[in-house]
Amino acid sequence: MPELRKDPITRRWVIVATERAARPTDFPPGEPLPAHSASCPFCEGQESRTPPEITAVRRPGSLPNTPGWEVRVVPNKYPALRIEGSTASVHDGLFETMGGVGAHEVIIETPRHDLHPATLPPGQMATAAWMYRERYRDLDRDERFKYLLLFRNHGRSAGASLTHPHTQLIALPIVPKRATEELEGAQSYFAREGRCVYCDVLRQEVAARIRVVWENGEFISFAPFAAWCPFECWLVPKRHEAAFGSLTDAQIPALAEAMQQTLGRLYRCLSDPPYNYIIHTAPYDAKVGHFYHWHIEIIPRLSQVAGFEWGSGFYINTVPPEDAARYLREVVFPAPQGQPAPAD
Amino acid sequence: MPELRKDPITRRWVIVATERAARPTDFPPGEPLPAHSASCPFCEGQESRTPPEITAVRRPGSLPNTPGWEVRVVPNKYPALRIEGSTASVHDGLFETMGGVGAHEVIIETPRHDLHPATLPPGQMATAAWMYRERYRDLDRDERFKYLLLFRNHGRSAGASLTHPHTQLIALPIVPKRATEELEGAQSYFAREGRCVYCDVLRQEVAARIRVVWENGEFISFAPFAAWCPFECWLVPKRHEAAFGSLTDAQIPALAEAMQQTLGRLYRCLSDPPYNYIIHTAPYDAKVGHFYHWHIEIIPRLSQVAGFEWGSGFYINTVPPEDAARYLREVVFPAPQGQPAPAD
Repeated sequence: MPELRKDPITRRWVIVATERAARPTDFPPGEPLPAHSASCPFCEGQESRTPPEITAVRRPGSLPNTPGWEVRVVPNKYPALRIEGSTASVHDGLFETMGGVGAHEVIIETPRHDLHPATLPPGQMATAAWMYRERYRDLDRDERFKYLLLFRNHGRSAGASLTHPHTQLIALPIVPKRATEELEGAQSYFAREGRCVYCDVLRQEVAARIRVVWENGEFISFAPFAAWCPFECWLVPKRHEAAFGSLTDAQIPALAEAMQQTLGRLYRCLSDPPYNYIIHTAPYDAKVGHFYHWHIEIIPRLSQVAGFEWGSGFYINTVPPEDAARYLREVVFPAPQGQPAPAD
Repeated sequence: MPELRKDPITRRWVIVATERAARPTDFPPGEPLPAHSASCPFCEGQESRTPPEITAVRRPGSLPNTPGWEVRVVPNKYPALRIEGSTASVHDGLFETMGGVGAHEVIIETPRHDLHPATLPPGQMATAAWMYRERYRDLDRDERFKYLLLFRNHGRSAGASLTHPHTQLIALPIVPKRATEELEGAQSYFAREGRCVYCDVLRQEVAARIRVVWENGEFISFAPFAAWCPFECWLVPKRHEAAFGSLTDAQIPALAEAMQQTLGRLYRCLSDPPYNYIIHTAPYDAKVGHFYHWHIEIIPRLSQVAGFEWGSGFYINTVPPEDAARYLREVVFPAPQGQPAPAD
């Protein structure tokens, strides 16, 4: 019998197919990455092919827009929004328009073309995560921005036009709908129960264990109870904090480890699937610290989303999250010693 | 300068790219349909290959599950939900589960394999629309069902696994998220203004004309102000009614004409694009008649949806709806006399 499950935060219902559930081998493996691409604008040595860099982690003495960097941040060459302009609203009867003001940046996570969060050296992943936080904090100083959307598209069917490892950010003068829904859900739970709904979900997941994928002292990843697509995973800090920007230096290695473990297990289990992750965080300057809890949502792009799902907000998930978590817990990661890293 | 636009009903913001806007020829044309498929379970003569029919419009004297039908309704062979069972909720701490009870049916709109709403004879489209309403009314009698989701997937990338013209319905024991959002948005507008927000949108669209695609005495189609994807169209009854089931017999030919004109213009303009449409209606038994307004949302599936859009609820639309509406108004439809219908 299929089940209907309700997300305790956003109150979205999903159908979870419990018969004929799909297994990892039911999904096509990802396309192999080329070892190197001379035409890639994100590769070391091609710095002049991107807009001038905003910031970078560099070897001492190396100059901006030249080789010698570890992580490099550049404006998106085809930005969805423009950095100049005002955010005044224009009303025309029922309709409200605002200038498309915002920042659209690319965080290039390694000079190497062929790596993946699963195969990056741990220090490199930590440097990338540190840079996410630095950009979060820097853009917080621009009063026009209300929200920072940090997201990663991996694989062509997940919307990545370049394969070189990178994450994007869009700083927005508005709060996107999904964030608003979460904030409203968490606020109404807090009003009722006096506690953070995410903290309560964590407590219940840790007690039940059946949906947990991996954890360390600071972070836990699990397949959410009402996962809306196969192998959806959430990565949540155990310490209650609303804003991603509150991530401390001491937490960064633990975050990098949890990301590598969770993404690495997906990579192994599903043969390098396309995926997106999105950092869900409090809006800038929002007084939501008591009830909201930042986290990362990882969405493998394994199946065609039918339009009715897209348009109705009603999803059918063919892999129960308990099964997905078990597959991900049981996979061998990292590679046993002596075995080459898979993308090398 | 790109624009941020806010949907007046759900208050979702979208980015509308006004520079480098895409044109109809920027999208790949649809795959041509085969003229006939001997292996299609929805073709006339193959009735035994579907589950036994629920109802049909038939020639007098023809027997169920044999040839001689115009429109045929069968259970989905691979239903997402099961018709038997109770809708009692089970709670486990924060988590709520309900048995996956529901109806999942297929409305086969013509015995012909190779037609499209753009090329169906008008009477046939009207018979199909009449059947939608009959199924809506029939399933309303089952007290377990709270909502009827009527949707059409056309083209493989829109989720259609069979090409034969058909629409699906899922009767649900819950109200899907998108419907709840619209109801909440419309209710709060009504509380503020004392009017239906959809009626007000129609008034403004009719006055502005720039986003109108087509209209007759009963229905109007237009590209919504905050369209979240290229060539999104809404088809709305001019008469205020909350539930699709209130469609009168007299309105059915006008609905069929408006559907054929709107879908036919998309078919012509974009060379048979994949699309979905979804009938947005009031939940069964909901007292929302004063503020909700049923309508059909048509979503061409022209571009890859990046995962960040899917996960953030924040969309980038590369075709301003004013441009989309102009392209659709200007296209020649139906085919000039003497020119063969395009799918024949």
